[in-house]
Amino acid sequence: MKADEFRKYGHELVDWIAEYLENAGQYPVLSRAKPGEVRARLPEHPPGGPEPFDAVMRDLNEIVVPGLTHWQSPNFFAFFPSNNSYPSILGDLLSAGLGVNGMLWATSPAATEVETHVMDWLIEMMGLPAAFRSTSPGGGVIQDTASSASLVALIAARERATGGHSNTAGVGGGRLVAYTSTQAHSSIEKDARVAGIGSDNLRAVEVDEAFAMRPERLAELIAGDKAAGRVPFFVCATVGTTSADGVDPVAEIGKICREHGIWLHVDAAMAGTAALCPEFRWVTDGLEYADSYVFNPHKWMMTNFDCSAFFVRDRASLISALSIVPEYLRNTASEAGTVIDYRDWQIPLGRRFRALKLWFVIRAYGVSGLQDIVRRHVALAREFASWVEADPDFEVANRVPLSLVCFRHKGGDAVNQAVLDGANASGRMYLTHTRIDDRLTLRLSIGNQRTQREHVEAAWATVREMAAKAAYSE
Amino acid sequence: MKADEFRKYGHELVDWIAEYLENAGQYPVLSRAKPGEVRARLPEHPPGGPEPFDAVMRDLNEIVVPGLTHWQSPNFFAFFPSNNSYPSILGDLLSAGLGVNGMLWATSPAATEVETHVMDWLIEMMGLPAAFRSTSPGGGVIQDTASSASLVALIAARERATGGHSNTAGVGGGRLVAYTSTQAHSSIEKDARVAGIGSDNLRAVEVDEAFAMRPERLAELIAGDKAAGRVPFFVCATVGTTSADGVDPVAEIGKICREHGIWLHVDAAMAGTAALCPEFRWVTDGLEYADSYVFNPHKWMMTNFDCSAFFVRDRASLISALSIVPEYLRNTASEAGTVIDYRDWQIPLGRRFRALKLWFVIRAYGVSGLQDIVRRHVALAREFASWVEADPDFEVANRVPLSLVCFRHKGGDAVNQAVLDGANASGRMYLTHTRIDDRLTLRLSIGNQRTQREHVEAAWATVREMAAKAAYSE
Repeated sequence: MKADEFRKYGHELVDWIAEYLENAGQYPVLSRAKPGEVRARLPEHPPGGPEPFDAVMRDLNEIVVPGLTHWQSPNFFAFFPSNNSYPSILGDLLSAGLGVNGMLWATSPAATEVETHVMDWLIEMMGLPAAFRSTSPGGGVIQDTASSASLVALIAARERATGGHSNTAGVGGGRLVAYTSTQAHSSIEKDARVAGIGSDNLRAVEVDEAFAMRPERLAELIAGDKAAGRVPFFVCATVGTTSADGVDPVAEIGKICREHGIWLHVDAAMAGTAALCPEFRWVTDGLEYADSYVFNPHKWMMTNFDCSAFFVRDRASLISALSIVPEYLRNTASEAGTVIDYRDWQIPLGRRFRALKLWFVIRAYGVSGLQDIVRRHVALAREFASWVEADPDFEVANRVPLSLVCFRHKGGDAVNQAVLDGANASGRMYLTHTRIDDRLTLRLSIGNQRTQREHVEAAWATVREMAAKAAYSE
Repeated sequence: MKADEFRKYGHELVDWIAEYLENAGQYPVLSRAKPGEVRARLPEHPPGGPEPFDAVMRDLNEIVVPGLTHWQSPNFFAFFPSNNSYPSILGDLLSAGLGVNGMLWATSPAATEVETHVMDWLIEMMGLPAAFRSTSPGGGVIQDTASSASLVALIAARERATGGHSNTAGVGGGRLVAYTSTQAHSSIEKDARVAGIGSDNLRAVEVDEAFAMRPERLAELIAGDKAAGRVPFFVCATVGTTSADGVDPVAEIGKICREHGIWLHVDAAMAGTAALCPEFRWVTDGLEYADSYVFNPHKWMMTNFDCSAFFVRDRASLISALSIVPEYLRNTASEAGTVIDYRDWQIPLGRRFRALKLWFVIRAYGVSGLQDIVRRHVALAREFASWVEADPDFEVANRVPLSLVCFRHKGGDAVNQAVLDGANASGRMYLTHTRIDDRLTLRLSIGNQRTQREHVEAAWATVREMAAKAAYSE
């Protein structure tokens, strides 16, 4: 493809994307493709020679789009959202176009410095602890996901607890113990497995009726493990759990961690963005005790996946746990110690210029523009919850601290399963479920930037319609 | 930003990228920015409200571009390359625009199925073992980097060796032992640390004069470890080492692994792409013994970072090592077992639709277009090596199996350091170094798609000029 063709097709594709996103609400949200259906339509063999781009665009429309679940639809209420936005798409496009690898400062100083700068901006925008600033012993870095961020936090904690011994001798004997709540994201258990800690050595601390970790139970478990000769080294608190938006009491947990010298990591993947608004800044309560913190701009801050913002209080712990310097990566700037080499803050070596998209988003929306979106979603969630509460057949099953409403029909699991399946099959909306008190519970997660009141109203109407059908068919 | 503004700025940015890439050879390759220089020019505080996009474009030109090291320059000869290309940029743009998260098949069937399909195409295009096909018990998946791919291979091997015990009880006692050569990429040691194996339990097997692992030494080390009651479980062979393009004898290593039931992982991050050409398909020799294999389309296959192609012989080993299913991710298609959920093939949960860019690249270039680029680079490397050999002041320090030439001035480390520093400071080229036989050695890594004979000629002229200057100043 020549430059002129790239210009032509690039313009077409930009227009195609604008058209797609403006009409994202028109598609059945959850793809109706059957397993294997997309593949069956793709050419069996790779082309021997070049194909025209028009053929690619045709397949995009005819094969790919029908096989998508439309995360950018205003009727997407599943999981947590994963927003893109026009400024973010442009930032990501620029990153692809520049094609630099910012593994070291020297391999593109701007990639590192814009990232450091934007991470510091986030601290200012959200009132995060000054200890996370790059001008302190701490610092921020973009990771691909909260899973990976929590993994590097776990490893930094592991090495701090063992004086670097695990990195050299391996994790030994199952004495290291980590803690998180029963409601924590599954990635914490996965990370414990990956890091050689083992899921048996990750304690699932009980929660209260608001799905928040019980700090007194944490303290008891730690005491018991210590008495048994084990080494508590890592606690992951969650602000805004995936299942039901539980908020752990971070300050209370943090005090316990301080007392025992345990690394406190806080996972606020979805909820963290709410700190943009002063009235929701309680999501950062207790972060002064945190050794590390992660939230995902790729969820609620209008920044394309992948973009997880990860902060540490003591970057030396992180770097010493993850740095290996082979000869072929040595360079003057790194040796002088005056620069950040982000490769030492993450598992992979290479890294894209991901800061561009976040930088574009912050500049194009401004703080006020991002606040507006968060406020609208929280208000819509509260309104939806009020409708559910007002309906004698339904009940709300969580406290709706932000934009996730857990609710269910009072008719039991079969009715709720029918609502879930019916609503998703209708194509009009996509919502997912959880289990609360061993009862099937529906989750309406409001977080797409295009979601307005009319979409939430329509969702409620669909839910009621499906419930009525289910009740009728019984 | 409204849709119409996105169209306007999107077109401008596409044109900007075309202009940038067409002129990539005009920039000083290695950025001349001083530490902190980029940050000092960025606004100290985030904007309260929206900024116009023109301001972003101005900063791009005035602040970002001077702070870049230009990986897409035809004069980039450092590390290994990381190519983008017009079709790949369009594929990545589309991925950003669609904004889907393909963590589960159900969350966008096309994201999974196009990926599976393209991975199978790669097998066909490169003559990889049929055991890696999705229709076999194996399969392929896109990872972000070879570092991460090798990490999941290591974990799958760890779990196979311990019957899943490490995932639950943790890695215990330092009995598990892994092996790779002294020339292996640093990520293998990092992975051993992350996975709780410990770098003391990763044996660095000696290499021969062509930087290839000595299989007889591997066999001896394994025998010694077994005799000492340890458990050899993982060998990483490298095809095309970063330092000097060494090629491990994979078949011989593989036979040893088979004999002892050891997982064989093969890292061909850069070299792997050469298998597109029948005359270089020797890079896949011995893969019939490999349990897993990785190479990076984001290096030499014109696909934007990040895109690592990872294949396993037994996907069940990988999935059982990495799968955790919380309630909120359960869905009909997954439960039926008829689909692939790629989240279980990697560390992170979320995933971008990365297959699009690889699909676009294969279709736009066709196999022949990609072969042409590889052939040109290898021919240029051989020609450069012949010039070095013909100069009595210089010597070639590796066998130049593909497109990496290691060479040095015979005048010793000081002269070579002066050549390295002088060439990079000139802005005319960027090359990096290694140490071979404890001597500073220059690496000319030819792999940028825009690199033609004239650029390699100019590089050689610059190297000789800097050497002459260094000799004169002594």
